[in-house]
Amino acid sequence: MAKKTRLLIPGPTPVPPSVAEAMARPLIGHRTQDFGDLYARLQSKLKKLFGTANDVHILTSSGTGGMEAAVANTVNPGDRVLALVAGKFGERFASLARAYGAEVDTLEFEWGEAVALDQVGERLNQGKYKAVLATHNETSTTVINDIRSIGALTRGTEALLLVDAVSSVGGAEIKADEWGIDILVTASQKALMVPPGLAMLSVSPRAWEAVSRAQSPRYYFSLPAAKKSIIKHNTPYTPAVSLFAGLDVALDMIFAEGLAQVYQRHQTLAAATRAAMTALGLKPVAPEVCASPLVTGVRAPEEMNADDLRRIVVQEYGILLAGGQDRFKGRVFRIAHMGYVDAVDMLGTIAAMEISLARAGQPVRFGSGVAAAQAVFAGRK
Amino acid sequence: MAKKTRLLIPGPTPVPPSVAEAMARPLIGHRTQDFGDLYARLQSKLKKLFGTANDVHILTSSGTGGMEAAVANTVNPGDRVLALVAGKFGERFASLARAYGAEVDTLEFEWGEAVALDQVGERLNQGKYKAVLATHNETSTTVINDIRSIGALTRGTEALLLVDAVSSVGGAEIKADEWGIDILVTASQKALMVPPGLAMLSVSPRAWEAVSRAQSPRYYFSLPAAKKSIIKHNTPYTPAVSLFAGLDVALDMIFAEGLAQVYQRHQTLAAATRAAMTALGLKPVAPEVCASPLVTGVRAPEEMNADDLRRIVVQEYGILLAGGQDRFKGRVFRIAHMGYVDAVDMLGTIAAMEISLARAGQPVRFGSGVAAAQAVFAGRK
Repeated sequence: MAKKTRLLIPGPTPVPPSVAEAMARPLIGHRTQDFGDLYARLQSKLKKLFGTANDVHILTSSGTGGMEAAVANTVNPGDRVLALVAGKFGERFASLARAYGAEVDTLEFEWGEAVALDQVGERLNQGKYKAVLATHNETSTTVINDIRSIGALTRGTEALLLVDAVSSVGGAEIKADEWGIDILVTASQKALMVPPGLAMLSVSPRAWEAVSRAQSPRYYFSLPAAKKSIIKHNTPYTPAVSLFAGLDVALDMIFAEGLAQVYQRHQTLAAATRAAMTALGLKPVAPEVCASPLVTGVRAPEEMNADDLRRIVVQEYGILLAGGQDRFKGRVFRIAHMGYVDAVDMLGTIAAMEISLARAGQPVRFGSGVAAAQAVFAGRK
Repeated sequence: MAKKTRLLIPGPTPVPPSVAEAMARPLIGHRTQDFGDLYARLQSKLKKLFGTANDVHILTSSGTGGMEAAVANTVNPGDRVLALVAGKFGERFASLARAYGAEVDTLEFEWGEAVALDQVGERLNQGKYKAVLATHNETSTTVINDIRSIGALTRGTEALLLVDAVSSVGGAEIKADEWGIDILVTASQKALMVPPGLAMLSVSPRAWEAVSRAQSPRYYFSLPAAKKSIIKHNTPYTPAVSLFAGLDVALDMIFAEGLAQVYQRHQTLAAATRAAMTALGLKPVAPEVCASPLVTGVRAPEEMNADDLRRIVVQEYGILLAGGQDRFKGRVFRIAHMGYVDAVDMLGTIAAMEISLARAGQPVRFGSGVAAAQAVFAGRK
């Protein structure tokens, strides 16, 4: 059979049929009352999701565009910035600040570890920073960082806290205002279950002050331009209208399920996946205490290339897993359980992975990984 | 989360995205060259699928309409007809012939058994019949009947062989001409992966002779009317154009996979499901020798109502299983593995059923049913 494609990569993630339907509806003009109503609806839903009283701007770009908007509008050439780097996306955030002429201090952590709070506190005591750049869910290492605690540290300083939450919003708790996040950036194609093409970001009053003093050239990603338009419930440049329509439905799905339930579902999927892999004798990359609820990285058996396993899984079962990036290449595979994914998806995936491991010559007792996951789903563990 | 709906009932079955897309395309007029081309394409594909050199007529109706067309166009009031009844759909075929005034002899078999060939031969020796009515895949009892052998018996007589293959074509081998089937009826919503609304039937030259002598009133289901139209690659009455377009794509999928591979996939899915249920201590309804490759019926544990299990499975996991019909009600559940279904679907379903059985108080060792299915998929059994 033409393989059923099962996207278990950390974005893009499976799009629910109701979201796809909404995107297939006839387009509306973007300078109309209809679009204004749509953007106003999205505002109120996104504020609730972000935990913020501030506007949430939607940019027609992928997540990196949102990260660029955060930096370009606040950081001036020569500004000192502290980048918390514990994986590929932490590195990207630091590179972005360097591209805008910032003097970037990086605080680096081993891949697979979370940002150590004591070291952050130390650095903040040692020097003044214009901004701290942090990654909420580091998909490259499948670690989630404690943004709440990082916010508690930056709050007492002059540093703005800019957070890449591209892959976490809609799947893991985040509270922009309560946690002291100045700019929170996310994107459509992860836990939000919409195809790629939208970045969203909230901006605190403290960040707007920095925006007013920003000197770097910017146009498409200009936050003052976005601010001027949002008053009329609009965007400065042509928005990806169909993705907005899809997001409207996807957010309704999230609130219909309930935010707490959505976060719990992701945690349960992660716990079940972790339990299954451990039962199969495989080692998760992230320690349990900081393991991402959205994606589980697993070390391949010593004698095997992770990409060989991935090849069997996709060829035989149509399940696309992610490989390891950079230093994890060939050594790690990653199973995303993000967005429109449920227990049956993961159980079928784990069973298919067991057969694939056996096909690759690994010793596997069929059903043993599945049983560990079932115990989690049944609430027995 | 809004439950993902997983249709594991014996029709309608899951519709592949490419089929849904084809049906969403702008409609074409049904008295146009475009429609003629579409119908001509469908003809050549359906002939190959049916194993016939004769035209395959497409009626805009569900399968029962196709069965009615078979009877109404060949059987006259007072004609003697032999109905082979081994389940609900065998009964329906007999009722239909009675509705058209036929004198129906029924040869009945226990639910869960196949039609016994020796008894058919005996009856055919005892008397002359205008037609024999047979069911290929009896979904109510999850038994597949040996139409090839039944055809070998009817071929030497004057009786027409009318076959209800509504739920088998596209999932189990059938060869209309080689097996001596005079009218072969199927429908769109089973192994053919299209929504309900189309019946298809082939008519042998011998059957056309009977059609020419048919006296019962018929209009919408008139085969002479269909025959007159098909010369111009058209239908006498308005066809369900979008379903025709979907069928065109679905048949391409089937031939791209390869007929032999499609039949093998269904057999493997059935074997895996059967092995899983047996490993869980549950008893399949059909003996292995005549078990349907398209749907597996399973007896619920003695102390439990099958519908209670079905309720848990659909509420917790969004998986819709079929219940038992008539005398099997509450005692049997049925798992269809028909059409757009693969190993990952069944593995996830079996794992979810294990948790559901445990939730219903049954003793279940997690992963044991899954492991038995995995052994089948891995080719170890």
